[in-house]
Amino acid sequence: MIKVGIIGATGYTGAELVRILIRHKKVKILWYGSRSYVDQEFASIYRNFFQIVEDRCFDDQLDRLVEQVDVLFTATPQGYCSTLLTHEILKKIKVIDLSADYRITDVATYEQWYKLTHGNPELITEAVYGLTEVNREQIKEARLIANPGCYTTCSILSLYPLVKEGFIDGKTLIIDAKSGTSGAGRAASVDTLYCEVNENFKAYAVATHRHTPEIEEQLSKAYGEAITVSFTPHLVPMNRGIVTTSYATLTHHEGITADTIRELYHTFYQDSPFIRILPPGKLPETRWVKGSNYIDIGFVIDARTNRIIVVAALDNIMKGAAGQAVQNMNLMYGFDEAEGLDLIPMFP
Amino acid sequence: MIKVGIIGATGYTGAELVRILIRHKKVKILWYGSRSYVDQEFASIYRNFFQIVEDRCFDDQLDRLVEQVDVLFTATPQGYCSTLLTHEILKKIKVIDLSADYRITDVATYEQWYKLTHGNPELITEAVYGLTEVNREQIKEARLIANPGCYTTCSILSLYPLVKEGFIDGKTLIIDAKSGTSGAGRAASVDTLYCEVNENFKAYAVATHRHTPEIEEQLSKAYGEAITVSFTPHLVPMNRGIVTTSYATLTHHEGITADTIRELYHTFYQDSPFIRILPPGKLPETRWVKGSNYIDIGFVIDARTNRIIVVAALDNIMKGAAGQAVQNMNLMYGFDEAEGLDLIPMFP
Amino acid sequence: MIKVGIIGATGYTGAELVRILIRHKKVKILWYGSRSYVDQEFASIYRNFFQIVEDRCFDDQLDRLVEQVDVLFTATPQGYCSTLLTHEILKKIKVIDLSADYRITDVATYEQWYKLTHGNPELITEAVYGLTEVNREQIKEARLIANPGCYTTCSILSLYPLVKEGFIDGKTLIIDAKSGTSGAGRAASVDTLYCEVNENFKAYAVATHRHTPEIEEQLSKAYGEAITVSFTPHLVPMNRGIVTTSYATLTHHEGITADTIRELYHTFYQDSPFIRILPPGKLPETRWVKGSNYIDIGFVIDARTNRIIVVAALDNIMKGAAGQAVQNMNLMYGFDEAEGLDLIPMFP
Amino acid sequence: MIKVGIIGATGYTGAELVRILIRHKKVKILWYGSRSYVDQEFASIYRNFFQIVEDRCFDDQLDRLVEQVDVLFTATPQGYCSTLLTHEILKKIKVIDLSADYRITDVATYEQWYKLTHGNPELITEAVYGLTEVNREQIKEARLIANPGCYTTCSILSLYPLVKEGFIDGKTLIIDAKSGTSGAGRAASVDTLYCEVNENFKAYAVATHRHTPEIEEQLSKAYGEAITVSFTPHLVPMNRGIVTTSYATLTHHEGITADTIRELYHTFYQDSPFIRILPPGKLPETRWVKGSNYIDIGFVIDARTNRIIVVAALDNIMKGAAGQAVQNMNLMYGFDEAEGLDLIPMFP
Repeated sequence: MIKVGIIGATGYTGAELVRILIRHKKVKILWYGSRSYVDQEFASIYRNFFQIVEDRCFDDQLDRLVEQVDVLFTATPQGYCSTLLTHEILKKIKVIDLSADYRITDVATYEQWYKLTHGNPELITEAVYGLTEVNREQIKEARLIANPGCYTTCSILSLYPLVKEGFIDGKTLIIDAKSGTSGAGRAASVDTLYCEVNENFKAYAVATHRHTPEIEEQLSKAYGEAITVSFTPHLVPMNRGIVTTSYATLTHHEGITADTIRELYHTFYQDSPFIRILPPGKLPETRWVKGSNYIDIGFVIDARTNRIIVVAALDNIMKGAAGQAVQNMNLMYGFDEAEGLDLIPMFP
Repeated sequence: MIKVGIIGATGYTGAELVRILIRHKKVKILWYGSRSYVDQEFASIYRNFFQIVEDRCFDDQLDRLVEQVDVLFTATPQGYCSTLLTHEILKKIKVIDLSADYRITDVATYEQWYKLTHGNPELITEAVYGLTEVNREQIKEARLIANPGCYTTCSILSLYPLVKEGFIDGKTLIIDAKSGTSGAGRAASVDTLYCEVNENFKAYAVATHRHTPEIEEQLSKAYGEAITVSFTPHLVPMNRGIVTTSYATLTHHEGITADTIRELYHTFYQDSPFIRILPPGKLPETRWVKGSNYIDIGFVIDARTNRIIVVAALDNIMKGAAGQAVQNMNLMYGFDEAEGLDLIPMFP
Repeated sequence: MIKVGIIGATGYTGAELVRILIRHKKVKILWYGSRSYVDQEFASIYRNFFQIVEDRCFDDQLDRLVEQVDVLFTATPQGYCSTLLTHEILKKIKVIDLSADYRITDVATYEQWYKLTHGNPELITEAVYGLTEVNREQIKEARLIANPGCYTTCSILSLYPLVKEGFIDGKTLIIDAKSGTSGAGRAASVDTLYCEVNENFKAYAVATHRHTPEIEEQLSKAYGEAITVSFTPHLVPMNRGIVTTSYATLTHHEGITADTIRELYHTFYQDSPFIRILPPGKLPETRWVKGSNYIDIGFVIDARTNRIIVVAALDNIMKGAAGQAVQNMNLMYGFDEAEGLDLIPMFP
Repeated sequence: MIKVGIIGATGYTGAELVRILIRHKKVKILWYGSRSYVDQEFASIYRNFFQIVEDRCFDDQLDRLVEQVDVLFTATPQGYCSTLLTHEILKKIKVIDLSADYRITDVATYEQWYKLTHGNPELITEAVYGLTEVNREQIKEARLIANPGCYTTCSILSLYPLVKEGFIDGKTLIIDAKSGTSGAGRAASVDTLYCEVNENFKAYAVATHRHTPEIEEQLSKAYGEAITVSFTPHLVPMNRGIVTTSYATLTHHEGITADTIRELYHTFYQDSPFIRILPPGKLPETRWVKGSNYIDIGFVIDARTNRIIVVAALDNIMKGAAGQAVQNMNLMYGFDEAEGLDLIPMFP
C-alpha cells in the first residue's frame, strides 16, 4: 500500500485522480491538497464523494507532505510545480506532475510559449515524459514524470506510428483538435459560464496554443527531423472528451494500403491495453471513451488528395490527464499497468 | 460464478446491465438477447464495449436460454415479459423483470394504466417488488423480481419513512418529477431527436403517467390507507438523472423538527449503503449521483406553509433500473449487496 | 422617436433589451450603461451586435443621463435602483426598473426577503407593478414601472384567472418552477460554469426564493385574502426558458369543467396578443416560445385528486424580463403594445 | 405581394423559411407543402407558430401549386426536385431549390457522389448557383436557383477571395468543418437521438461527404484550375451553427500581410451586408450568428508554417439554407437584398 498526496485535488483533474485512486487496490490517499479549500471537507466541494471520502483539504505544505507520502501528484497551474521541486524532494518521493513544467526539454521554448520563467530548469533532464505507451521503460525507472497534456496525448499517440515509420510527410501535418469544456478547468470565468459555452462552437488560441511545442518536440524526435505542425484547438459544448482530426500527405503512396497502416498500428500498440485501433470503416467518437482510460484511433486514406486523415478520441480528464498519470504510477511501482483503470466507458 | 442472460441487451438499460455485470466478480454474461440486432456483435452496437465484449447478440429463444443461464434480466417493453414467463421457467431460472409487468398487484389497475392485457396474471403474486431497501428480506427468497420503475424508486425511497410513520398527510402528496432523456429509451422517434429535446423543457403525461399506480400502491401499503398522488413527470435536456421534488403537509407539526425527520431517515436507511441522507442545508443534484447506484435525499421544512419539501436524485439507468436490478440479484444469491456496484459518481 | 437609456446594458437582460430596441421603430438607444465595461464598444462585449451597434458603454452618470433620455431601463442588481431614483428624476424621465426594488409594496417584506435596506421606500407607492396583461391601464399612466420577475410573470399570469374567480383553493397552491441558466446572470461564478450546470438538474433556494413574496402579494390581491404559496425553483441545463407547474385543489368541483376553465382564460386574456392558451391536450414547452415575448398556458384537470395542474412556459429574458419591459414602454408612450416584439419563437 | 409555395415545409429548413417569410413585407405564403403531414395544421407540427400561422399542410400537387404561386421553395430530399421540374413549370414560376439537385454542373459527378440518377439533367444549365455574394447578378435574372449547401456556403464564402486572387496554393487546401445537429434534419433516427448526440463529438463521412464536389467546383472556377480539397465534417452537440476551419499554404509569402488579406476581404465583400469580416485578433463563434443571416469570417497567419488558417461561422439553417434562399428571392424580385432578414443574432 503506497501513500499518495495530491496537490490541486479540487480541480477537475485532481478530483478525477481521487475517483480513480479511491478504488485502486494498492494505494491510499493521505493528502488532499487544495489552497482554495483548506480545512474544508473534500466531499463538500465534490459531493459525489459524500460518504466515500471523509478527509479534509490541506494547504500545500511540501515539507510535511514529503514526510508522509510516497508519491505526489501535482495537478496545479503552470509554473507552480517548477518552483516547488528540488533534488532533495525527489530523493524522498516520486512526483507525477500534471502541469506542463517539465514536459518541454528546451527551457527557452517553454518560457516563450508559456510566458513564464522556469523555476528549476536543471530538473527538466531528470523528468521522463509520461506518454505511457511510448516511454514505458523509462517511466518504470523515473522519479519525476512530466505527464503529457490532453491534446498532446491524443495527437501524438494517434500519429506516432505513422511519423516514426516515415509514412507521412512531416511538413504537411495539420492537427485540428476539439475539446470538451472540462479542459478549461474549474476557475470562475465569464468565458466558461454555461450560457457562453452552450450552443456555441469556436476555435481559440489559433497558431499559439501551448500544447504545440510539446507535440512538435515528441513527433520530431520520432520523425528524426524537425516537424512544425499547425495545431488548432476548438471548444465543444460538452463536459468531457477530445477528438483530434489530423491531416498529412502520405509518402511512397504506391506501397501503402489501409491494411499496411492498420497492421502498423496494431504492431506498435499490441501490448497497450488502453489503445484501441478501430476496424475499417469505423471512426472514434468521444461517447465511446467517456469516463475511461481508452484512446480510440481510426483513419481514412483519401486517394483523391493522397492524404491520410487520422481521427482519435479520448477522455481529456482520464487518458488525457488523471488516467494516464495513474497508469504511469502503476509502472513506476511495478503494479499492473491497468490497476484501478478498469473503468468501462459510460454511455450515454 | 453464476450465468446471466439479458433480454433487451441493446436498450440503454440493457447496456448498463452489461457495464455493471462485466466487472461483477461472481457472474458471467452468457446471453446478449436483442431481437433488433441478432447475430451482430454487441460491441458494434455499443462501441464503448469494443475489445471488452466479444459476444454477438442472440434472438430471444427462451427455451435455449432457460437451459444455459441461472438468472435472466428482462429489459423489454411493457407486456413482453408477461407473455413470456411460466411457472416452469421459474422452476429453472430466476427472473429479474425490469419492465412493469409484475409491479402492480391488481391486474385491473395494470391493464387500465398500461392499456394492455396481462398475459400471465397468476404469476403476479409470485413476484416480489424489488425496491431493495424496503423489501430486502423477501427479495432474498424470490424467484421473480418486479424491478421498480425509475421515477418510482426515486419517489418511494425518498418518501417512505415519512409515509410509514405518518409524518405527512397522505391526501396532500404531490410529486413533481424530472428525468433525463435516456429514460425515453433508444427507439428512433422524432420526439427524442437531439434538436427536439435540447434547449427544451416540458411536462408530459400529466396526471396519466404509468408510474403513478405503482407509487400509490407502495405508499398506500406503507401508509395503511389509500394514497392518491399527483405525479407529474418532466423531460430534462440531459442524458441521465432523475430529481423528484415532493410536497406534503406535515402532521402533528408541533412535535416534528428537521432533526426528528433527519433522524428518522437515518434510522430507516442505516444499513443501506446506496442511500445518502444529505446534511442540513444541502439538497440532491443529479451530477453527484451520475453513473452510480446512489440515491441522495434531502428535505426542507417550510414553516410558512406547514409543508415538507423532499428532494431526491438518482441515476435513472442505475439505481432507477440496472443498478437496482443487480443489487437485487446480489441479494438473491447471497452476494455482498454492493458487489459490482462500487462505481463512484462521475463528475463532471 | 423617443430616446432610451439602459443601465446594466451588458447583462443578459440588458443585451436583450438592445436586441429588441434596435429594431423598434419608435425609439433610439442613446445610452449603453455598463460600469464593468466603460468606454468599451458594446459590440466587443456582445459580438452578435458587430456592425449593428457602434456605440461604446458609458458609466452610470445619472445626472447626464437624465438630460439626454426620455425613458430609462435599469437592469441592475437588487438594491441599486432603490438608491438611485428620486422624485426629481421621475419628473424628468420615465423609469422601467427590471430589478425587484419597487415590486413589493411592503418595505418590511422586501427587506426581509432581500436582506437589504430599501433606499427609497417613499417611491414604492409611485411604482406601478408592470405585469402588462393585469395592470394595463395603470401602466399607461405610470412614471415608474416595477417590472416583474421572470418566475413571477410565469406563475402569476398562468394562475391569475383561476385565483381571481376563486376556482382554486388558495391554501393549496404549490408552484414548482424550472428555469434555464441565463436567469443566473453573466457574473463569473463556479456554480454557473458550463461543467457544473451541464448534465445536472437541481432545486435551489427551496422555500426561500425571493420571487415568493412577489407572487404572494399579487395573487393575494386577486384572491381577496392572503395566499401563502410553496414556490420551488430548479435549474435546467439550457440557456433560456421557464416552465412553471402549478398545483391547486379545485373548488366547487361539480360545476367546473375543462371547458369552463378554458373559456375563463380566453375571456381574461382575449386582448392580450402575447398570451396563448393552448388547445385541450397540449401543454407548453419552452422550445415553442424561445426568443419571443409569448407565454403559453395549458392545464390538466385531475379528477382523481380534484386538483388542477397548470403548466406555463415563457422565455425568461423576453416575456420574463426585457420583452415585458418593452411591452410596458409601448403602453406608456401610446405605441402599439406589440411594437418591436414581433419576434417569432426560434426553433430549433 | 408575391405568392410563395414551400415544398418540404415541415423540415427544419422549411420551418425556418416560414419563420422568415411570415415577417417579410413583400410575400405571402400560400402553400405549406408536406407529404408527411397532409391536412394537419402547420402550427400543430411547429407549435412556435401557434396563433401565427393558421394554414394546413398540402400534399405536393405541383399542377395546382404552379397555378397559385409565383415562386416555389423546394426544401426536399436530394433527387426529389430533379424529377419534379420541367421547362414548362419554369415558364410559369420561379424555383429556389434547397436540395443539391441543380448545384453540380457535371451530371456524372452528381450521380457519383449522390448515388442517384438525375431526373432532369437538361435543366442543370438553366440553374444559377445561389451563392448570393458571388453570383449576385446572375441570380437577379434566374428562373431556377440551386441554393448552396450549408457547409458549402461557409467554406466557399470564407475562402473565395483568397482563392480568386491566388493568395493560397490550391493543392494544399484542407477544410475541417463542424456542424450543429439541425443539419441532420428531422427524420426519426437512432443516430440523431438526444442521448446519442449529446455529450459526443465525432467526425463523419470523412473524404466522402457530398458537399465536397460542390465546394471543389466553385473554388476551381475561381482559382482557374482544378482544386481538390480535403473536407471533413463533424457533428457538434448543439442545435444550430457551422464553423469551418480551413488551412492552406500562402503563396508569395513575402508580399502578403494580414492587412493585405483583411483589405482583400473588405473589398470583395464591401456591398455584402451579411458578411462580417472580424477585426484582427477576433475569430468567429457560432453564438454570435445564431438565428441570423450573417456569416462571420476571421483568419490567422501562422508564420511558423507559412499557412493561413481561416475560420468562418454561420447559422446552418439561415445563411446556410433558408436565409440565403430568401436573400436570393429578394434579388430575383428586385426587393431589398436584406428584406425579411433583419434578424439580430440571438444570444444566449
